[in-house]
Amino acid sequence: MAPLSEDEVASRLVDLPGWAVVDGRLHREVRFRDFPEAFAFMAQVAMAAEKLDHHPDWSNSWNRVVIDVVSHDQGGLTSRCFELAAAVNRILGP
Amino acid sequence: MAPLSEDEVASRLVDLPGWAVVDGRLHREVRFRDFPEAFAFMAQVAMAAEKLDHHPDWSNSWNRVVIDVVSHDQGGLTSRCFELAAAVNRILGP
Amino acid sequence: MAPLSEDEVASRLVDLPGWAVVDGRLHREVRFRDFPEAFAFMAQVAMAAEKLDHHPDWSNSWNRVVIDVVSHDQGGLTSRCFELAAAVNRILGP
Amino acid sequence: MAPLSEDEVASRLVDLPGWAVVDGRLHREVRFRDFPEAFAFMAQVAMAAEKLDHHPDWSNSWNRVVIDVVSHDQGGLTSRCFELAAAVNRILGP
Repeated sequence: MAPLSEDEVASRLVDLPGWAVVDGRLHREVRFRDFPEAFAFMAQVAMAAEKLDHHPDWSNSWNRVVIDVVSHDQGGLTSRCFELAAAVNRILGP
Repeated sequence: MAPLSEDEVASRLVDLPGWAVVDGRLHREVRFRDFPEAFAFMAQVAMAAEKLDHHPDWSNSWNRVVIDVVSHDQGGLTSRCFELAAAVNRILGP
Repeated sequence: MAPLSEDEVASRLVDLPGWAVVDGRLHREVRFRDFPEAFAFMAQVAMAAEKLDHHPDWSNSWNRVVIDVVSHDQGGLTSRCFELAAAVNRILGP
Repeated sequence: MAPLSEDEVASRLVDLPGWAVVDGRLHREVRFRDFPEAFAFMAQVAMAAEKLDHHPDWSNSWNRVVIDVVSHDQGGLTSRCFELAAAVNRILGP
């Protein structure tokens, strides 16, 4: 799975509200009511990541979760990065 | 912590929408969109249970979670059962 | 995916220590040190189940987890049931 | 709960294998077999953190978890930081 071109990335980002490309990675930050709600979100993302076999680089501090997605082995963004980001948005809901 | 009287149980149930007393235990069944959403809910309940040091007897099948709460060591319902049930309701939201 | 024959089930059970067929379902019970350890195990099983798109009927009470696996839509045991049971055994380790 | 003195921190660190003070925070990095094992560990830490009402700043990348602990509101390390770090070590086992 080759990295996407800059044009492809720009085009796909349009359909991915909340995400930006930062340092070559898909990046989104989310805040929740409290820690348990943040961690429950992380549990859902963990299941989606395991299902897609594509895992985020992410961090958590209390009610805040920061997610970065990149295909380390491809050295860039691939369609699987966008699949994971779209799954995150589905979990977060409208 | 002594078990609550039948009157106390009845009185507290009024403030606990969604719960009933079944076989001497607080009982609630909840359905979610899918398995990951159900399990994320369970993760939040797990944190609440661990914090209260009072744990449910519960089961899950796909998008369905069935929760029973009783104080095994007291042989009845105590205020901690109602605290856990109220925490579950807070997690589920309005 | 058709249900496995009784012979196939018997043959596959040989390689599945800890599991038995109870009421037509693969059945295993596991005990842990405490609730958090039991729930961490459940989180791993949840990820495996979501990855296999095959989910258990399971219950938890404090440090105890009871797992039943069947293909509801096939009305019997299929190879996916055995895949999930094998994944559970890999999680539990040797 | 006031921050601990440098001497107190140094003294408590002796009983906390795997942890160091980095940038004024208790710091430990752990690697697991794979992502699900790493996330199951995180689920256990999440329950311990919620029970102690003291939460880590942490990140995960595949099988790797990096944990930092500090009392943000005290601007330093307190005994609760050491309680959380000790709970992490109990989860990791001997």
